[in-house]
Amino acid sequence: MKITIVGLGLIGASIAKALSGRAEIRGIDHEGCVIDQALSQGVIGEGSSDLSLAGGSDMVIIAVPVGRIVEIARGLIPHIGPDTLITDTGSTKAHIVECIDELWPWFVGSHPIAGKEVPGYSASQADLFSGKAAIITPSNTTKSECIERATWLWEECGARVTVIDPCMHDELMAVISHMPHLVSFASMSFARDLHIHRDLLGAGFRDFTRIAASDPVMWKDIFLANKQHILQLIDGFIGELGMLKEAIHKDESARLEEILRTYSTIRRDLYEDNR
Amino acid sequence: MKITIVGLGLIGASIAKALSGRAEIRGIDHEGCVIDQALSQGVIGEGSSDLSLAGGSDMVIIAVPVGRIVEIARGLIPHIGPDTLITDTGSTKAHIVECIDELWPWFVGSHPIAGKEVPGYSASQADLFSGKAAIITPSNTTKSECIERATWLWEECGARVTVIDPCMHDELMAVISHMPHLVSFASMSFARDLHIHRDLLGAGFRDFTRIAASDPVMWKDIFLANKQHILQLIDGFIGELGMLKEAIHKDESARLEEILRTYSTIRRDLYEDNR
Repeated sequence: MKITIVGLGLIGASIAKALSGRAEIRGIDHEGCVIDQALSQGVIGEGSSDLSLAGGSDMVIIAVPVGRIVEIARGLIPHIGPDTLITDTGSTKAHIVECIDELWPWFVGSHPIAGKEVPGYSASQADLFSGKAAIITPSNTTKSECIERATWLWEECGARVTVIDPCMHDELMAVISHMPHLVSFASMSFARDLHIHRDLLGAGFRDFTRIAASDPVMWKDIFLANKQHILQLIDGFIGELGMLKEAIHKDESARLEEILRTYSTIRRDLYEDNR
Repeated sequence: MKITIVGLGLIGASIAKALSGRAEIRGIDHEGCVIDQALSQGVIGEGSSDLSLAGGSDMVIIAVPVGRIVEIARGLIPHIGPDTLITDTGSTKAHIVECIDELWPWFVGSHPIAGKEVPGYSASQADLFSGKAAIITPSNTTKSECIERATWLWEECGARVTVIDPCMHDELMAVISHMPHLVSFASMSFARDLHIHRDLLGAGFRDFTRIAASDPVMWKDIFLANKQHILQLIDGFIGELGMLKEAIHKDESARLEEILRTYSTIRRDLYEDNR
């Protein structure tokens, strides 16, 4: 099995490491020093900054920021054989699936639910996907063989595969991932002058703001690609803050407690062990 | 040293456990079963639901929700000797310090920056304060001996002591702790129907929403007690969300990236190791 990975960042390089010894891995990246490092560490067998390296692959995985995935797919097509599977790892799916479906018959979108706030090759790790969920998002026209081959990929990386429609994926991810990131990012607006009080920051602040250290380029793309759902959720969230504000302003102690109890019950029910 | 702790919840019982063998500990709680458990486990030497148990103590620590601290202090005074130190563990300080200063000359406010989202006796642990910050908030009239005795208490519990003015404490905590809790609570409004997708929740969601499982009674009191700062911060936060919304709505890619980069830089600078 010959696999080419485009983008040797956190996700792409972690896939390469996870598949070590189980496939012949080539890596494409625009950073020459990343390719050199991946080659010298044996993470990839061949490397280049040119998409033509993908020629002869059985599978190509596009692991670049959401805003560049379609353009990379378009650039790959002249170089790859007629039944090469293309998949991607983007955090939004509807638009990407719609565009690449038109370009290439052997495509299915993927989204591994794994990652951390530190981007880049040096943060990659072989067990990043181990025990995590990986979502595959076929459209109406996706060949079942594409789903099977993508399932093989993610299971080889140690992930559990779930199949979801691309539009439902985006609606769900807006809630599960995109809004938490947006709100955690926005919370840093309070924190401009906190460095002088660094000793006083507790575990609550640390965990709540951890994802605010995420990559701005990656998240700008995600927020724009999923704007339809995100704009609606921002409005809902502002409404929720308005309700809390009113209860606090009017000293409505019982109502405030009831609202907070509803929130905390949702959280506790989601994680039955309360952690 | 005889110490009485009022409220054997997470904080109160953790203090009792931390001081084990270093002081004679009495515990007061309105839950009879909690007292029985603390007595049978040797966490307290004597227990009661009656404040008169505090008689003869060198120090009384009030570890109940913020909204009940002043009332407990008032109830304790008829029972305690003339130089008994009273301190509390409330997460807001200005109002509490102002009120108890008028009632009792041997008072100083405290706030240990430790805790977790699971409240109650059964979550308490001897090392809860170990290596954490404990803030002492003297007013203009606080005797220096009160500060010294409260410093002893928190250092015995394993904490690092910081002294801050009560008003500045509340302003700072609104940013560091109260707003992150409020925003994390409010985020659960998205999550009402997520239980069917529990397998897909990643580490980002888990950490961001962890503090939303916190105790509604405790946090209702805190939000009301610190309403002046919190209402102002909610307005600022809604403004910040409005700015993000506009950039997303108008597809202002470069501006959005710049805003997100500012946020992520603040977070990364706060935690130099990027975690």
